[in-house]
Amino acid sequence: MYDAAIDGTPTPRAEPVTRHNLLDAVTARILRHIQEEGLRSGDRLPSTRALAERFLVATPTLREALRRLEATGAVEMRHGSGVYVRADLSRLILVNPNRTELAAETLADLLEARELIEPHLAEAATRNASDEQLAVIAAALDRAGHVLDDDAELHVANMDFHRAISRYAGNAVLAQIIDSLVDIYRQEQRAILEMYGDRANDHRAHLDILTAMRERKPVKARRLMAAHLRDVRAVVTGSSAR
Amino acid sequence: MYDAAIDGTPTPRAEPVTRHNLLDAVTARILRHIQEEGLRSGDRLPSTRALAERFLVATPTLREALRRLEATGAVEMRHGSGVYVRADLSRLILVNPNRTELAAETLADLLEARELIEPHLAEAATRNASDEQLAVIAAALDRAGHVLDDDAELHVANMDFHRAISRYAGNAVLAQIIDSLVDIYRQEQRAILEMYGDRANDHRAHLDILTAMRERKPVKARRLMAAHLRDVRAVVTGSSAR
Repeated sequence: MYDAAIDGTPTPRAEPVTRHNLLDAVTARILRHIQEEGLRSGDRLPSTRALAERFLVATPTLREALRRLEATGAVEMRHGSGVYVRADLSRLILVNPNRTELAAETLADLLEARELIEPHLAEAATRNASDEQLAVIAAALDRAGHVLDDDAELHVANMDFHRAISRYAGNAVLAQIIDSLVDIYRQEQRAILEMYGDRANDHRAHLDILTAMRERKPVKARRLMAAHLRDVRAVVTGSSAR
Repeated sequence: MYDAAIDGTPTPRAEPVTRHNLLDAVTARILRHIQEEGLRSGDRLPSTRALAERFLVATPTLREALRRLEATGAVEMRHGSGVYVRADLSRLILVNPNRTELAAETLADLLEARELIEPHLAEAATRNASDEQLAVIAAALDRAGHVLDDDAELHVANMDFHRAISRYAGNAVLAQIIDSLVDIYRQEQRAILEMYGDRANDHRAHLDILTAMRERKPVKARRLMAAHLRDVRAVVTGSSAR
């Protein structure tokens, strides 16, 4: 299975040709198990040994399949505790876990993409969100209002605001796209916003969007979201050009 | 490292607590190597043994890191040949390799997402694409015109047409999003289109879009792309509701 033994691990014979196919099959079996059992994020899988016996494969093979699933975000292996379902398997789009740092021009593209998609979602959420869902959006802003002095906490609350609007617009694919873009954005751009962003101004813009949504004015919500994201882009691209 | 030995593999002691951190570090080192050496898709990495020696880790650990990178699409391990760079590491967005089958309503969402984004890209590509780039778009359609009777080939050519327009619009993030959506779409929806789609009609719609682009009429290109994708959605959602 391995081709050398620097750390003293015994060296079995060359990897069999079917190794990849076997791993693929075991990976697919685990995913099917998660689906068929209706397991959700946070649910624990049976023990590695139990799964290996059920699928009639060696435990090392099973563990390797689990590690592949961990690398792609489907499960999480907690040492000494077990294997847990992590990602939503109905998710179509993921952030590339191996991506390199964001180039300045890609950052501008990222914000332009949000500018194209999020106003549409703000309009749709204004039409489609229930009052309870609007309350969730409002709660994120309320949290933001209490942490205007804590950049890290503020950013989480603000991004929750954007995510919630996307989630309640009624299009799962566009919601996933925004979720991913916001994630990338969070990791790469918080520093720039901390330096150059205007927290109070952003917060006011968010509150105005929420007000338009509560008044059920979809076109106004769209327009305000577009203006807000244009402002963000001006700040971020302006500062990264310095 | 492993906790059982159904296939007769020797059973070493329990996995050390730092195992995950070590794997993360080795994975990051490999990615940095790819970046620093400027390796691109199709380029071969040094041998596993050479990399293990360079990074001062055991070969099994290195191989495991490579398998993680393979699972997330960064490299490809070809049996007996070596390890090759696969994905573009500057890519931000990936299709979830563990995703489950597309639900009918998700399919409608997917097409609605394309309807929001692709008309914008058709307009931008009409403004931004060079004549050479328009020729690449035209070449995809030309190929499509020659394989109207071969569903599989036709679909590849048609999707290349959509991808090329996205690529030349000037926004890398939106191009990646469309690339991913088209990929998902390809795998899940070809069958439906083969049953219900109107190949000649789609081809005419594509040719009209290309004509508008060649005439450098951005608004017309946008309008035609929107109408085309509305038609596709009507066919696919209509047929999947049957």
